[in-house]
Amino acid sequence: MSEWRKDPFTERWTIVAPERAGRPYEFGEGEGTQCPFCEGMETMTPPEVFSIRRDGTAENQPGWFVRVFPNKYPALQRDIPFWSMEDEFHQAMSGFGVHEVIVETPHHAVDFSELPEEQIVKVLMTYRERLRYFSGEKELQYGLIFKNQGVEAGASMSHAHSQFVATPVIPQAVCAELQSARAFYSQRGKCLFCALLEQERKKFTRVVFESKHFVALVPYAARLPFEVVVLPVSHSATFLEETRLEDLAQTLRRVLWGVRECSGGSAFNFVLHSVPYHARSEEYQGYHWHFEILPSFPRVAGFEWGSGFSINVLPPEEAASRLRLCLGFQESE
Amino acid sequence: MSEWRKDPFTERWTIVAPERAGRPYEFGEGEGTQCPFCEGMETMTPPEVFSIRRDGTAENQPGWFVRVFPNKYPALQRDIPFWSMEDEFHQAMSGFGVHEVIVETPHHAVDFSELPEEQIVKVLMTYRERLRYFSGEKELQYGLIFKNQGVEAGASMSHAHSQFVATPVIPQAVCAELQSARAFYSQRGKCLFCALLEQERKKFTRVVFESKHFVALVPYAARLPFEVVVLPVSHSATFLEETRLEDLAQTLRRVLWGVRECSGGSAFNFVLHSVPYHARSEEYQGYHWHFEILPSFPRVAGFEWGSGFSINVLPPEEAASRLRLCLGFQESE
Repeated sequence: MSEWRKDPFTERWTIVAPERAGRPYEFGEGEGTQCPFCEGMETMTPPEVFSIRRDGTAENQPGWFVRVFPNKYPALQRDIPFWSMEDEFHQAMSGFGVHEVIVETPHHAVDFSELPEEQIVKVLMTYRERLRYFSGEKELQYGLIFKNQGVEAGASMSHAHSQFVATPVIPQAVCAELQSARAFYSQRGKCLFCALLEQERKKFTRVVFESKHFVALVPYAARLPFEVVVLPVSHSATFLEETRLEDLAQTLRRVLWGVRECSGGSAFNFVLHSVPYHARSEEYQGYHWHFEILPSFPRVAGFEWGSGFSINVLPPEEAASRLRLCLGFQESE
Repeated sequence: MSEWRKDPFTERWTIVAPERAGRPYEFGEGEGTQCPFCEGMETMTPPEVFSIRRDGTAENQPGWFVRVFPNKYPALQRDIPFWSMEDEFHQAMSGFGVHEVIVETPHHAVDFSELPEEQIVKVLMTYRERLRYFSGEKELQYGLIFKNQGVEAGASMSHAHSQFVATPVIPQAVCAELQSARAFYSQRGKCLFCALLEQERKKFTRVVFESKHFVALVPYAARLPFEVVVLPVSHSATFLEETRLEDLAQTLRRVLWGVRECSGGSAFNFVLHSVPYHARSEEYQGYHWHFEILPSFPRVAGFEWGSGFSINVLPPEEAASRLRLCLGFQESE
């Protein structure tokens, strides 16, 4: 059984999850190894909890487009006895939460940006569905969608998949964003992301791509080369109500392709940040959902661990200019 | 020229350092390549700023035991025009700071735990010396010593070395510790680290090793397997005044050897956290210097990036028990 532990010095939370030590590591195994994420291999995974599938096909049978099941080696679990502990120095609780695998295609494709657009739309529908499914549970504060593509990005399986984790604690990374968003909203009565986006689109130097509803840009203080954020142009705090999935699928696919071409490698992570489940009204007003795309570069060494600072060798404006060129995107477009 | 940039959403600082893009990457090059960190190769590096060397030998000549010079590909520099910029959303300043390389041995050794003890004493003296050297500069808030050993740990050179960085901003990782330390000190009138250390030594479950003056233990919420903290038993906020370097060298060497044996790999990072340069009296009372040792495991994937949480597959008590066994350390010792 896993457990949540809070560091007494930094307030960081760690999930101690010995179950995950046993998980298989597909990379480097022989070619003949059967992929449990492929269509036809449904019995090799836990039973599905959600799928988008062809009419008339049955659960846990072939015929699906996107398939979701609990992670076989979960960091967190929902149906475990809940306990919590607090003493003078320590804080801990049972490894309560949700940890699911979202298989993005029935075929053994490995690169997200090579999936057909209509397939990516189904993946995005699935993200929204899983986020919604747990949104009413008062013990769960947050739902996080993330993707690791490639062994350098921490993936243990090559078949295209993403993961969903729901947690009883709001992630620190989101707390930091919420804090800035709340401060800006209380001073200025508008969304920090909207305000900044207006300026970024005017300046254009860090914009990478724009579609009808979405913008992709390199953050001003990007942590690594070709880091990109994708977010809706108009204010929208939560991904749970997002309906413009075709436009988003097109944008994500195109931008991820560009990131791969420019960064010279196909490994990346992305994460989807949406407003927390039980957010207050001013958080809905001040926060803005977004995807963060992080290509894999060697990046976390002693300096980053010890300081929390990042060193980025590629100026964000230069990264944006190369990405725009690669994507054939011009200001006038 | 590099620059500091603050992310408007998270307040994280990034150093944008295009100079570092050109740095050589020694790993993977042919065996015949000359190592610029070896004795006799002094002209291949920038001129030294400090060394511990045999009497009668001249600067930038052979005869040294430990040698320090500015990083040839610096993330930060001291002698550059200072500028700073702040608008509604952004904050930036010139890449002001210090970035030095500390070569830990004249011979081409690669593993810190295999250096002779008296050599490690000289390395620790050098750490203290470089930290002290910049401690009076009012523009510099912090001096950070860190080490990357092995390519998995982010090292670009194999010859045993560590780095010194001085920054005009206190690193977030240290701010988080200071905040907890200040809160505890204001409530309880004592050092959080001292108080917790007393409890940990009584419980013993996470203690790994004790010498006369130092304790090594696995943190309660360790981020990864075999993470170890080494700190003095008695209260001491700053490494700048540390004199028990022989005992510390013995302890570090032994613990790093144990971490290598248990983790099954020689790559690791360590960082030295000391109280900030211009700390106030209550920070001196409430903070406690320490080394954090982080063995290299694949660890930063989408979940960690997107949440700030860690997942550790090895319970800290189990890690400590294995390390104690390996080091032959018993409670009665």
